[in-house]
Parts: sequence; structure tokens; C-alpha cells
Amino acid sequence: MNVDIGNALASVASPGVSRDSLERLDERVADAHERIEAGRANDEHGYAALNLPERTDPDEIRETVAPVADADALLTVGIGGSALGAATITNALAAESDVEAVYLDNVDPAWISTQLGRLPLERTAINVVSRSGTTAETLANFLVVRDAFERAGVDWTERTIVTTGESGPLRDLSDRRDLPSLRVPDGVPGRFSALSAVGMVAAAVCGHDLEALLSGAAAEADSLAGSLFECPAYAYGTTAYALDARGAGTNAMMPYAESLDTYAEWFAQLWAESLGKDGLGQTPVRALGATDQHSQIQLYRAGPRDKLVSFVVPDERDDRSIPATDVDDLAYLGEATLGELLSAEFEATEASLAAAGRPNVRIELERVDEYELGGLLYGMEAACVLAGELYDVNPFNQPAVEWAKRATRGLLGEGTFEEAESVTEKTELRVER
Amino acid sequence: MNVDIGNALASVASPGVSRDSLERLDERVADAHERIEAGRANDEHGYAALNLPERTDPDEIRETVAPVADADALLTVGIGGSALGAATITNALAAESDVEAVYLDNVDPAWISTQLGRLPLERTAINVVSRSGTTAETLANFLVVRDAFERAGVDWTERTIVTTGESGPLRDLSDRRDLPSLRVPDGVPGRFSALSAVGMVAAAVCGHDLEALLSGAAAEADSLAGSLFECPAYAYGTTAYALDARGAGTNAMMPYAESLDTYAEWFAQLWAESLGKDGLGQTPVRALGATDQHSQIQLYRAGPRDKLVSFVVPDERDDRSIPATDVDDLAYLGEATLGELLSAEFEATEASLAAAGRPNVRIELERVDEYELGGLLYGMEAACVLAGELYDVNPFNQPAVEWAKRATRGLLGEGTFEEAESVTEKTELRVER
Repeated sequence: MNVDIGNALASVASPGVSRDSLERLDERVADAHERIEAGRANDEHGYAALNLPERTDPDEIRETVAPVADADALLTVGIGGSALGAATITNALAAESDVEAVYLDNVDPAWISTQLGRLPLERTAINVVSRSGTTAETLANFLVVRDAFERAGVDWTERTIVTTGESGPLRDLSDRRDLPSLRVPDGVPGRFSALSAVGMVAAAVCGHDLEALLSGAAAEADSLAGSLFECPAYAYGTTAYALDARGAGTNAMMPYAESLDTYAEWFAQLWAESLGKDGLGQTPVRALGATDQHSQIQLYRAGPRDKLVSFVVPDERDDRSIPATDVDDLAYLGEATLGELLSAEFEATEASLAAAGRPNVRIELERVDEYELGGLLYGMEAACVLAGELYDVNPFNQPAVEWAKRATRGLLGEGTFEEAESVTEKTELRVER
Repeated sequence: MNVDIGNALASVASPGVSRDSLERLDERVADAHERIEAGRANDEHGYAALNLPERTDPDEIRETVAPVADADALLTVGIGGSALGAATITNALAAESDVEAVYLDNVDPAWISTQLGRLPLERTAINVVSRSGTTAETLANFLVVRDAFERAGVDWTERTIVTTGESGPLRDLSDRRDLPSLRVPDGVPGRFSALSAVGMVAAAVCGHDLEALLSGAAAEADSLAGSLFECPAYAYGTTAYALDARGAGTNAMMPYAESLDTYAEWFAQLWAESLGKDGLGQTPVRALGATDQHSQIQLYRAGPRDKLVSFVVPDERDDRSIPATDVDDLAYLGEATLGELLSAEFEATEASLAAAGRPNVRIELERVDEYELGGLLYGMEAACVLAGELYDVNPFNQPAVEWAKRATRGLLGEGTFEEAESVTEKTELRVER
């Protein structure tokens, strides 16, 4: 990926970052890069994620999923980092695959029943992913899925791939049933694991080119350097951090490609869980071009000056011409393609924000394919780790989610948790119809 | 809907609103309510939206769509307010319908081709919606769709319903081909038009109960009153406004129902375009429970104190039990249902935010059905209009989107627009790999 931060400069936007400030920040980038390289060299917790392009073994993944190579549908049972990386890849590349990829990343009963009712279970593969092997939503859904297969007379043990840690309930279950399984990578938090088995099992079942995903990521890894002016990932991470420090507490990630809709959700988890701590962290907002021009741009252009808009734009795409029409006022459309219209919408929106002095950054891909997608995922992870260094927070933990997990277990009667007790003490001020 | 603002009080949260401040604000609510009632009585621009429950004629809509009553799929061609209301309704109620509803709300060529390639066009209805009749994305997509039907040998004039204004290119086209058509309601901006033909044509084709949608909305209309303590919609609008004024510039809308995912997008448009002006306006963030507990809650609980989290929770839902398991550590799940797990997740998350002093509001529905959905849409619209009064902004216009529309037309060669010229003057600071 390439990155253009011109529209985030103080000469264009407010808030904006001056060239002088960028040069000062670049000294911190040099130090942070050294820290990151040391972390990678020692495979330290979290930093190990940036070594995945060379550690992940595509042959092992393909061999593991071979038993379900005939699948027409793939049901991934996982949540958060165990689903979003895989979903980003398979949704971005869905047009290239004959396998329908479905993600059970919620425990809504009606929705689960709808999915299980419409899929051809005898031709569906199951991809269960939980780092800890204890995630309540994932394990509950897996029990429900297993049961649905049994009721349909389909042997789920022949159709299930497990990705989990070395031990835990899911590992026990996998061992007992002798299921094909893979290990989550050591020292890599879920949201940084798209380029491991966690994200790539689904990509393999859908027939995507794992080597291209990894080589695109490896090229991005090779571009990491001690200056933001030489490294697109660091340019992005530094700009986002600097804009936040100057008042842009919101980061709207707005790809101009329908297939990258899930990528914006993946980014939102990466950014929120990694940097949202100690009262710090930009709030990611998921947007989509051109659709959200008709929903969010009014606010982005004329609301509070608290936003960075991050565009992701492919240079090339498969196109489709707009047929000529018999209506005079629409004749101009018939001389264009849908792709040209979408490009014009992007350029107009980018310029409209700049004209209003609203900071924005352009992330450029050559096209949406495995290679470029691998680079985008890796680049954003590196940008996030760099931002963590600049914020002086640990981007690899998520301590604030534990409270609710304990409360949930208490409410379901798994044991006594003081968190569950505070649920009943809620302050009410109800207004009823 | 009922609303519980207890967790937004200053005694619980920071930022929070004190009871004393709420009582002061209630005097402004009384004035605003008078203004709103006067606007409704005179059918003024925008305020007319709040009269839709009594103005919309379900029989007329059903009669107009009768020619496509046999459809297995419905392709709605629209963007922004011409798509989101309809999509909110049909996605929320999708489990009750045999008609697959697809929304062409973007001009991404690969994605459009995928949709047109997989739908059974001879059994697909087309629902074209554009208030002005000139929306570039919608008209371009309609030309493409029309052409695809012709190529497939399907007479699109037999399968198309048009909803647009009294005049304009789409009206001309509709008249010339003698298509069944409906009028967009006078004085109702697109994002406030879900309860008119704009949202209800799709609901009718999908077989949903239009009378129940309207009567749920009418019940909400009847609950409008001159005090926030007596009116759930105003309680919500006032609380959101007061929290924004106290630092919660972000409003995360987080329904605990997969089927309400699109509702959060609809709300995001309503809130962003209506209130995002003059440097004011809360930034809406689309979230989903329980999924985003594993993505956003770390930030909401431990990041900056700049967020209101708005939960939408149905009291009842179709449930599904979690089968018992042979793994000891998971035995507790087998004693619950998926619905109980989801409820426990919600209560735990709500309590975890309150325990960290983070403001949140609970919007309660009895269940997700037509009646409750009509009430929710109307209630949020009324909340938004009330908030507009409190912010002293006009919630019914969106002047900041015009710039990019003009630039797009200039870039596509429709004429000379100075906005298009500024696109080429972009400040660049490119960092390449």
C-alpha cells in the first residue's frame, strides 16, 4: 500500500499536523521502530504478530483443510479477532470463490437458526476458532452447530477444522474427537492474527492464494523503516496519532470498495482494542464509500472538527459501463462506467473534505487481491503497533473486557462473581410510553 | 419503546447529567414540544415526517406493488435515505419473509455484477427510489439493472415500481414507460421517510404488516408530550444532547439483535445528517451486541470519556437451547439457551460500563416485530427532531453534501463546476513502499 497524508497537513486542514511537527515526530518513529524490531527479533508477545508472514505455513493449512475441500459453504464459528480477519479476507475476495463463507460471530438465536436452516449442511464445512478455547459465545454456538449437524444426519467430526491454543476445552474436545486442528500462533493477540491459521483456514477453504496473501504482507514488512517518510504504515500510524493529539479523536475508515466493508470492521477492532486504554485512543468509525456520502459526509464536513477520514482506494477494478439512456438529464451517465462514477465520487468527497479543512488520508491499493490485501492487513497492524509506541500504551492487551466476561459467567451460574451482583444494583430512571 | 436513562445520570457516570439539569432541560423540552406540535399542525417542511403514521396509505402501497406480488427477490435501487429505512424494516423482519431483499446502495461495479449475476431476474422485482429523481448513483444503477433485465430477456417494465417526486428524470422515465409509481411524501427529507412509500414498498413486497408498522409509530406519536419524563423519545433525545454538551461527542448505537444491524446504520444517517452542522452534532457509531463486545468494549470502557452507548434490547425473542456437552468446563452453557446467554451478555456489558462510570441508555422493545419497529423508527425520529431544537439547528437539511455532488458532476463532464477544478489541486505528501 501507499499512503498520501497531504490532506492531513496543517496547511490544508484543522486539525492538521505541520511538516515541522512531523519531522519532530519522526525522531520518535525512529526510536519506536528500533523497539519494534527488537520485539520482532525476540518474538516478544504481540510483536510476534509482525513475524507472521514468514512463520505461517500455507502447506500445513492447506493439508489440514483437505478433508473439507469439497465444501460449498464454510461456517466459521468465532467472534472478535477469531472471525474478523478471516471475514475480511473471504469477503474481500468473495467474487473469486464458489464457497459461501458465513460467520457465526453472534449468539442471536433466531439468526443462528436462520443460518443453520438455509445452509446445505452435508456440503458445509465448520471452522471453529477460539484462542483460549473457552470463549462462551463460540463454544455455545459450536455446541448448537454440532447438534444441528447430528440432527441432519451429517457427521460433523468429518467436516470440522479446529484452530485453538495448546490446551483448553476446545483443544480437549478436538483431541477427543481426533479432529483436524491447527494451533493459534504463540504471542499473537487475536486481532493481530489474520495472517495465521486464525484467518487463513477460511481463505484456504475458499480457495484463495495463501502465498500471495503472505508475500504481500512480507513486502509490507520489508518496507518498515526508521522514518515515517519512508514507510507507508508508519506514515499512517503517526498521522493518526498526531491528528488525535490535535483533536481528531475519531477515525472514520472509509474504503471505496463494497468488498472491503468487513475490512473496516476489522480495522475498528484493531484500533479500538489496541489503543483504547488509559483514557486514550481514537474511536474508529466504520464507513463505506460511496454509500456513506449519503449518510455521514454532512457530519464529517460540517460537524465538529474531531475527525480524521481514512480512505482506502484501489487504483484498478473490474468495471461495468453505464448504458446510454433516453432521458436527457441523465445522458452524462451513459458516457461513463460505474467504476468512473465511483472514482469521481471518491475524488469529489476527498476534495470536499479538504476544501472544508477537514483532515483526511488516502491509502492506495493497486487492486483488491490477495497480495494487496496481505499488505493492507500487515500495514495497518504495523501502523497500530507504531501508534501504541507513540501513545505509550501496550497495544497487545485488552484488560477492560474481563469485567463483563466474569459478570456473564456469574449470571449464567458458573460460579460466584462479584461483578454479577452489581448487575442487579442498576440505577433506573425509566420513561415509559 | 421504553427508555431507561438511569445510567446516564451524573450520580452513575462521567460525563453524566444531573437530575437538576434534567429538570432545567425539561423546560426547554416543553417549548420544543410546542414548536414541534405547531410544525406538525401546519405540515411544515420536516415536521411533516412526524405525521406519516396517519398520512401513509397502506392500501395504495399494496395496490401499487400488486404486479410484483409473485417476486422471490426484491432489488431496491436507492442510496442513503432512499435505502436505509426500507433495509432496516426488511432486514429486521427477514426471518418472516420468503422474499430476499437486496439493496443496491453503492456503485461498485464488481459487486453490482455479482448481485445481478446471482439473482433470478425473471422472479425479481425492482424498487427504484430517488426523492429528487436525479441521484447519480441510483440512476446509474437503475440503467445498469434495466439493461441486465433486457439482456436476460425479462421485461423490466413489468417488474419495476418507482418511488420519486412529482417531477424529475425518474418521474419522466416512469411516466413514459407507464410504470406503477408512488410519490415521495411532501416536506419529508429522505432520512425521515421510512414510514412512507420510500420505506414501505419494500416492506409490502416482502409481505410485512404495514398497518402494524404504522400503528406502532402512531402509538409513539401519541406518547409525544411536553416533558421528557413522560415521553421516551424526548427522554432519549434530551439525554443524548445533554451528554454531548458534557463531552460525549460520540453516540454508539448498539442493538442486541442481529436483525437490527441495519437499524444502527439507519440511526447513524438520521443522527449524522440531521445534527451534524455548524460544528455541532454527535458522531454516531454503529455497533452490534454481543459481537462488538469483542471489538469495541475495551475502548468504550477504558478509552476517552467521550461516548454515550445506546443499547436497544428486545424483551422477548425466539430462543434456542444450547445442547449439553461432554466437556466439563462448558457444562454451564448446556444449562442455558442462546437467548439467555445473549441477555446475560447484555446485562453484563451494561453493568460493566456503569461500573466504569461510562454513560449508557437502554432502549427497550417488547420484541422485534412490525409494531415495535414502527415505534422505534418513529421514536428515534422524534428524538432527533427534539435534539435539533435543543441544538438550535435545522435537522431537516444537509447543505454540506452539495459540494461533492457538484464536483462529481463536473468530473463526469456534465458541465463546468468550480468544485471539480479544486480536485486537481490536491496537496500531496505521498509515502510509497
